[in-house]
Amino acid sequence: MGMSLAYKILSKNLINGELKAGNEIEVKVNQTLTQDSTGTMVYLQLEAMGIKDIKTDLSVAYIDHNTLQAGFENADDHTFIKTAAAKYGIIFSKPGNGICHQLHLERFGKPGNILLGSDSHTPTGGGMGMIAIGAGGLDVAVAMAKGSYFLTVPKVLNVELKGKLKPWVSAKDVILKVLQELTVKGGVGYIVEYTGEGVKSLSLTDRATITNMGAELGATTSIFPSDEITYDFLKRQKRANDYTELAADIDANYDKKIVINLDELKPMAAFPHSPDAVKEITEENKIKVDQVAIGSCTNSSYTDLMKVAAILKGKRINPDVDLVISPGSSNILKMMADNGALGELISAGARILEAACGPCIGMGQAPKSNAISLRTFNRNFKGRCGTKNADVYLVSPEVAAVSALEGYLTNPMNYGEAPKIELPKEFQVYENYFIYPPKNREGLEVIMGPNIKPFPLNNALENSITKNVILKTGDNITTDDIMPSNAKLLPFRSNIPKLSESCFATIVDDFKARSEKYNGGFVIGGDNYGQGSSREHAALVPLYLKVKAVIAKSFARIHKANLINSGILPLVFENKEDYNNIDEFDELVLNNCIDSVKAGIFTIVNKTKNKEFKAILEVSDREKAILLEGGYLNYAKK
Amino acid sequence: MGMSLAYKILSKNLINGELKAGNEIEVKVNQTLTQDSTGTMVYLQLEAMGIKDIKTDLSVAYIDHNTLQAGFENADDHTFIKTAAAKYGIIFSKPGNGICHQLHLERFGKPGNILLGSDSHTPTGGGMGMIAIGAGGLDVAVAMAKGSYFLTVPKVLNVELKGKLKPWVSAKDVILKVLQELTVKGGVGYIVEYTGEGVKSLSLTDRATITNMGAELGATTSIFPSDEITYDFLKRQKRANDYTELAADIDANYDKKIVINLDELKPMAAFPHSPDAVKEITEENKIKVDQVAIGSCTNSSYTDLMKVAAILKGKRINPDVDLVISPGSSNILKMMADNGALGELISAGARILEAACGPCIGMGQAPKSNAISLRTFNRNFKGRCGTKNADVYLVSPEVAAVSALEGYLTNPMNYGEAPKIELPKEFQVYENYFIYPPKNREGLEVIMGPNIKPFPLNNALENSITKNVILKTGDNITTDDIMPSNAKLLPFRSNIPKLSESCFATIVDDFKARSEKYNGGFVIGGDNYGQGSSREHAALVPLYLKVKAVIAKSFARIHKANLINSGILPLVFENKEDYNNIDEFDELVLNNCIDSVKAGIFTIVNKTKNKEFKAILEVSDREKAILLEGGYLNYAKK
Repeated sequence: MGMSLAYKILSKNLINGELKAGNEIEVKVNQTLTQDSTGTMVYLQLEAMGIKDIKTDLSVAYIDHNTLQAGFENADDHTFIKTAAAKYGIIFSKPGNGICHQLHLERFGKPGNILLGSDSHTPTGGGMGMIAIGAGGLDVAVAMAKGSYFLTVPKVLNVELKGKLKPWVSAKDVILKVLQELTVKGGVGYIVEYTGEGVKSLSLTDRATITNMGAELGATTSIFPSDEITYDFLKRQKRANDYTELAADIDANYDKKIVINLDELKPMAAFPHSPDAVKEITEENKIKVDQVAIGSCTNSSYTDLMKVAAILKGKRINPDVDLVISPGSSNILKMMADNGALGELISAGARILEAACGPCIGMGQAPKSNAISLRTFNRNFKGRCGTKNADVYLVSPEVAAVSALEGYLTNPMNYGEAPKIELPKEFQVYENYFIYPPKNREGLEVIMGPNIKPFPLNNALENSITKNVILKTGDNITTDDIMPSNAKLLPFRSNIPKLSESCFATIVDDFKARSEKYNGGFVIGGDNYGQGSSREHAALVPLYLKVKAVIAKSFARIHKANLINSGILPLVFENKEDYNNIDEFDELVLNNCIDSVKAGIFTIVNKTKNKEFKAILEVSDREKAILLEGGYLNYAKK
Repeated sequence: MGMSLAYKILSKNLINGELKAGNEIEVKVNQTLTQDSTGTMVYLQLEAMGIKDIKTDLSVAYIDHNTLQAGFENADDHTFIKTAAAKYGIIFSKPGNGICHQLHLERFGKPGNILLGSDSHTPTGGGMGMIAIGAGGLDVAVAMAKGSYFLTVPKVLNVELKGKLKPWVSAKDVILKVLQELTVKGGVGYIVEYTGEGVKSLSLTDRATITNMGAELGATTSIFPSDEITYDFLKRQKRANDYTELAADIDANYDKKIVINLDELKPMAAFPHSPDAVKEITEENKIKVDQVAIGSCTNSSYTDLMKVAAILKGKRINPDVDLVISPGSSNILKMMADNGALGELISAGARILEAACGPCIGMGQAPKSNAISLRTFNRNFKGRCGTKNADVYLVSPEVAAVSALEGYLTNPMNYGEAPKIELPKEFQVYENYFIYPPKNREGLEVIMGPNIKPFPLNNALENSITKNVILKTGDNITTDDIMPSNAKLLPFRSNIPKLSESCFATIVDDFKARSEKYNGGFVIGGDNYGQGSSREHAALVPLYLKVKAVIAKSFARIHKANLINSGILPLVFENKEDYNNIDEFDELVLNNCIDSVKAGIFTIVNKTKNKEFKAILEVSDREKAILLEGGYLNYAKK
């Protein structure tokens, strides 16, 4: 049997271990990226490691999240990251340059490379034939320091694409279809690899849309082959030399397979409040729309925005709709200014925001109370848009644009001829927002503003822990639930004590008070605990609040790694029904913790209920050592 | 003796009273404008009046302040204003359309008209030969309801402009020079009227820059003649029919006069933290710059931004500078996109923000800790930028652009040839962000979100008031001190109880607590108390906190009117030295208040110090009646 493309790249970059699903391996990391909301922690950790140079081929520090700057905190974070980047030899991308994943595709991504990013949508790079993985900040800091990354080898799930998309149906609909089929848990433990004749009909940024939102499947990453379409994109970006042809073997071995017939797809939307609540858009679900938001790392490419401009050209958006557009990069904005498309968006009545993540991460543009908001983004978790009672629908740029004109969620298939966008012969490649590190970096200082606080450190694991359950959650708890992310909280991503006031705020008002009352405790979770973003704050804040273990039915990959890095035990119920036998505030006892970690199984006593149950610790030997030391930084110091 | 232009327009619109300085008159109001941060109160007040139609020729409700939308509050306010506008026959300008004053110049301003606006920079319209006055929200609501406005006739101060500006010197330098000469108190009680040969060398938007920032002089308004340059602007805006030629009589009578020789002006900056701390920019004050912000109602015209683009063309901004640009209107942004200038701004590395007030009102783009920020705006009060310890310098667009390239506060006069900007033959005049009220407005409902709270009402004046001094301030206290305005507070402009937590926050941390402890009280102020914005929140919040009187050395005009409208006594020390005999928390007694109001003089007993002093109430008979009733709304109801 032949090899999948994913395994080919992992194999080529293998440093230690056997490339076999479930094994832990160490792979070379060619590139890293950070954004600013996770990046401050990354560079604090890098500082703590006391290294002089990074070991990757290329590392980039992007500013794209905290760009509103309602107080000094954001700009201080930008300055901190900028000065740290200069000190360690990292490329810095100024605010206004655009969204990290879009920019990385444009300027730096390389087929066949391994990219580690402190952002869950790092798999965008998979559209270019990279193994591009989102990870916690500490993993990215270590990757910069050592040039490598430890990874439990995922299985490979093959999505075979047949046929060709109909007019008005787009890449967004492909990934929405995959989400409908697999659900937000369906990708856990897998790399999703796209093959089939349908691949050829998808542009590079189409592919990136699909791999980007593979994050919502819970997959480790997603990948497309690198072919003539990849070459064409790189050439237009004046980077033809970065091209390598890459594909899976024809008889590649896959652990699972699904087939998507592109011909059969119709425009779809993910309904509130989950990216997998996907339905076709029909006359039956014609819903009046208050806001339409276009952009984000999922759908802000040149082609996506040019399609929107073509649809809006000469028209006026519905007066009851607020249409906001955030371009993916400064060069896209410039090209669209120069070719007249931006003028069309403006004369139609669109609000043009800065090239940044913007409303996708709740950084502004919260809609009105009880609003219906259509967004071309990747997540529609309740409250993420900044308005708790708003309903967010995830759609393609085509659906967004047509709906903005109509004022209703509209299937565009009856809307005349679909726009066809030609790529410019050469993309504009101005780099004036990038600051390359100076040659001589001797004596450069890192500037830290008063909002930048040290990150919390854990202690070595105690052998016996008796604590109360201070929270019990349902299934699919997201990192947005554990550590909410919005315009009010994002300025405090470098200030864990301040963030801790809002821990689990979407679920309970008093989590911090509970922690203080009980001197820390345990959290009980359902299935897919910790899905969503890569933010390690969802582990660092519980660490700060003395959470000793999370006992769940199952974990999302990145969050589990972040818990381990923070020295919090991620335990899985051996028997899922035991979840039902625990109530909030029950007192649990974990005895013989050190031996239990080594054995990978805990026997837990519920003193309140006078019952006993087993929980498994599914981690590698290296991760066991990290947990025993109380986290990765303690481990790395030894 | 002939008549000033200001008096000609007032005279033409006179309804009641004698046009003589110091007299109160009632004038017809042709137009009103509101923005969203003051507008929610205006439309709550209009609702409270229970009227059916507005009585002005034209009223416009702009959304330009609260455009970040970090929570549902902003969008709810927009919806409230939009639905109120439709109900009462008011034109609504959607967010993204641009800044009220720039838009009003472009689309609606009319030479010879009287414009009343709930924004202190309403005098921008004076650049077009209007009497354009900033007023408290309630005055604007009444103007819409009745079509008129009560005004104490100001004196007229003539600024004669001689000669012609040198290259690189701009309209901003003219008003900075006037501020240097007259100070922020120099315009109090005056209309500033520009005449002289120098007028002809200034474009319409140059004139608007000068009248706009006349607000910083404390002037009632500023005005330029309406001449062929006015006609030319209106024609290019496809509004030639709105033109009327207007000028002062050649032998016009002025109460005061200064002469500015334009030839002698050099590029200047207002240094921290006052618009009148003006100095020339020299090699001696070469200061490293962290942020440059271009835009605001003062300097965001087509010509201003085109100059910036011409200076930045083909260059790269200094890597240590964050350059942010907020265009004045959507049509300016579109024209600059279409003609390539926007592309030049982007390729140089500028951050392009939405067409709105943005950073000028602290709505985002707070610089880093201890930053030096150059801004083309109108106010540099401490903390207004969102960063308490930042130093803000007010400069022209030319100085801003050259300094952004150099990284230092730079006099551009040695910087080669100054850019010359030709106006486009016709401005673009898309109106797709405007919503005109429907013909049939029967049964239209106003939508109020949960953040919109009723405004506070006062009670009729008590005859004897014994309270403590709960705050004593220095001179030149601004409305930004009384009721701070920033990205965190602006969403609560329709929520007085929430705002009250931050009353006087730049001066003391505990004003609300003081008010609660002492059950309200008095505020002692210095000279020019209440300068700055027109926000009536600076009176409504003290009303809510039971402030019964402000006793100051002198008052800024709009704030004094707002205090009266709220039923708070604005008393002036008869003898300024008595200010020194009062300490915070002294107990004061105001006896015979009703007769004292009627007589216009109070004898106040300082029980703590066992002293007595006199304070004057300089108000019209109508205003006395308002104070006796406890505010304008109570008075209007009777």
